[in-house]
Amino acid sequence: MPALPTLAVVGATGAVGTVLCQLLSARRNVWGEIKLFASARSDGRQVRCRGEELTVQTLTPEAFDGVDVAMFDVPDEVAAHWAPIAVTRGAVVVDNSGAFRMERDVPLVVPEINPGQTRHRPRGIIANGNCTTLAMIVAVAPLHREYGLRELVLASYQAASGAGQAGVDALHTQLGKIAGDRTLGSRPGDVRQAVGDDLGPFPAPLALNVVPWAGLLADDGWSAEEMKVRNESRKILGLPDLKVSATCVRVPVVTGHSVAVHAVFAAEVDAESAREVLRNAPGVIMVDDPATGEFPMPIDAVGTDPSWVGRLRRALDDPRALDFFVTGDNLRKGAALNTAQIAELVAKELTGR
Amino acid sequence: MPALPTLAVVGATGAVGTVLCQLLSARRNVWGEIKLFASARSDGRQVRCRGEELTVQTLTPEAFDGVDVAMFDVPDEVAAHWAPIAVTRGAVVVDNSGAFRMERDVPLVVPEINPGQTRHRPRGIIANGNCTTLAMIVAVAPLHREYGLRELVLASYQAASGAGQAGVDALHTQLGKIAGDRTLGSRPGDVRQAVGDDLGPFPAPLALNVVPWAGLLADDGWSAEEMKVRNESRKILGLPDLKVSATCVRVPVVTGHSVAVHAVFAAEVDAESAREVLRNAPGVIMVDDPATGEFPMPIDAVGTDPSWVGRLRRALDDPRALDFFVTGDNLRKGAALNTAQIAELVAKELTGR
Repeated sequence: MPALPTLAVVGATGAVGTVLCQLLSARRNVWGEIKLFASARSDGRQVRCRGEELTVQTLTPEAFDGVDVAMFDVPDEVAAHWAPIAVTRGAVVVDNSGAFRMERDVPLVVPEINPGQTRHRPRGIIANGNCTTLAMIVAVAPLHREYGLRELVLASYQAASGAGQAGVDALHTQLGKIAGDRTLGSRPGDVRQAVGDDLGPFPAPLALNVVPWAGLLADDGWSAEEMKVRNESRKILGLPDLKVSATCVRVPVVTGHSVAVHAVFAAEVDAESAREVLRNAPGVIMVDDPATGEFPMPIDAVGTDPSWVGRLRRALDDPRALDFFVTGDNLRKGAALNTAQIAELVAKELTGR
Repeated sequence: MPALPTLAVVGATGAVGTVLCQLLSARRNVWGEIKLFASARSDGRQVRCRGEELTVQTLTPEAFDGVDVAMFDVPDEVAAHWAPIAVTRGAVVVDNSGAFRMERDVPLVVPEINPGQTRHRPRGIIANGNCTTLAMIVAVAPLHREYGLRELVLASYQAASGAGQAGVDALHTQLGKIAGDRTLGSRPGDVRQAVGDDLGPFPAPLALNVVPWAGLLADDGWSAEEMKVRNESRKILGLPDLKVSATCVRVPVVTGHSVAVHAVFAAEVDAESAREVLRNAPGVIMVDDPATGEFPMPIDAVGTDPSWVGRLRRALDDPRALDFFVTGDNLRKGAALNTAQIAELVAKELTGR
């Protein structure tokens, strides 16, 4: 065991990997050597991380030798293949893909909520939640502890970068094509025509539009994204019977997922007490003064760590329900930050400090 | 009584008034003379309507003499002043403002739902609903008739034109300012800086953002828009105790309001039967095949009459609840079309044909 553990970042050149490197430069340093890995097309690229110029390498099994903690941000099938190899070579894997999240012997950890579960990792893998779940759950969990959560009805406003750098590129390209034509958006199909084939990873144009679909098709008309939000919320909160209905919608925002939350509790709630709970909750910042134009929005929350919560009010027709709006940076708390936080918990455990 | 009734359009040069004139040109003609009114700054402007060039006039009390039906699309305070004057001069007023909607002696009519109420107008005024209510209620009402509605949880995705032509202009101006800079949307405040003071009628930039606020501040942190959706839904459906929680959010779309709907009913529901109900419902078009990329979106629904409904599925954890997504043209069914439909019902009553 070295004095400071060795870290590997797998998927270092993607949208989330790039933010991970930024975070490693900005957060308190708990790491010894840092190794960066990506697919073959990034091999040899130089990336600045923690003040050093690091060379991105292609993955091999041997590359994990000597690695204590490996953060994975790669597609599900890549994680499914490589994470067990990293474990075999001695690393603890913190995985941001969907490959292991719902496995019973893989903990799904949000450090503000269930940090102790990092230690229960029989397969050597700890999972990070989906970006939409993470934005919202940091605010929901402290309210659950106070009032006892029974049901969530959620509608999301998800940013292009949730689909990776290709999503961001597509949105900017589309905006470039529609800008300047002030007639667009007023006739059926005119935006489709202007955008043409530049859809990127989305099933329809995102510019001047909202797309009520994210992820693959699951059963009975549900999207995989909506199922993730339901199943991960239940697992993180330890509430296997929690009622959850989520509608996941992509919007023309670069970074920052927002969620309109309707949360029903076992006990009566009071808006002012709920605000006080959230003001004291880790990872949450309250921005809730509509009279002065203060509410959570992606253009403010992007690039920041906490979940921004506002528009909090008690349901008018149900004294046990709260309505509120949350915005979080889907690349930070929704991905890289939560991964880094989990990895730091493991580093602390490994080094005893 | 003339063979064909005389129609006045008050607010003929605004975003909704412009669509009203287009609709009057396209729909079956039930009108004799058409008179167009607007504020003094549009006085004398020529507007093409029903194949004629009409001159826009400034309002005077005498201008309503001989008018049988007056459609109003003006700010609340203008409607509050002028609608009673029009009634005194002999016109039936169909008002699209919020000034009279919740008055007990003013019917709030959606012709697909409660057409008979146009005849119960002791004050001579019939109100048109708010654009967000209308987009969604056309789909909710037939499901209510089938299953008995108990509760609605709604999150909206509202277009810029809901705030009038000034909203559309502001969005296009903002898009012009942000286009071409592919770095925008990734750092806190960078979009605010690029947009500058060109906010138009919105409290924050709409480009690359979502703004969880529409309308004035009501009590307890609710927006006036959210209160309208609740109160108007109850009145239109005749359900004074209906539980409604709405979160109203503005998105960078030109025209086309969308709503994510979670509807809880008295009886168990079945997604396929619900789809059949909606396929047979007037004013609704089902677009619900996610496997082929078919779901309701503003870029397709804009410029069309029906409410587009899709993403319909039964809640996984509540057999009495349905989740679905609706998009409607907020200037058509959400405003001008519903106004025209009500006015046509009155024309039919007045002429007996």
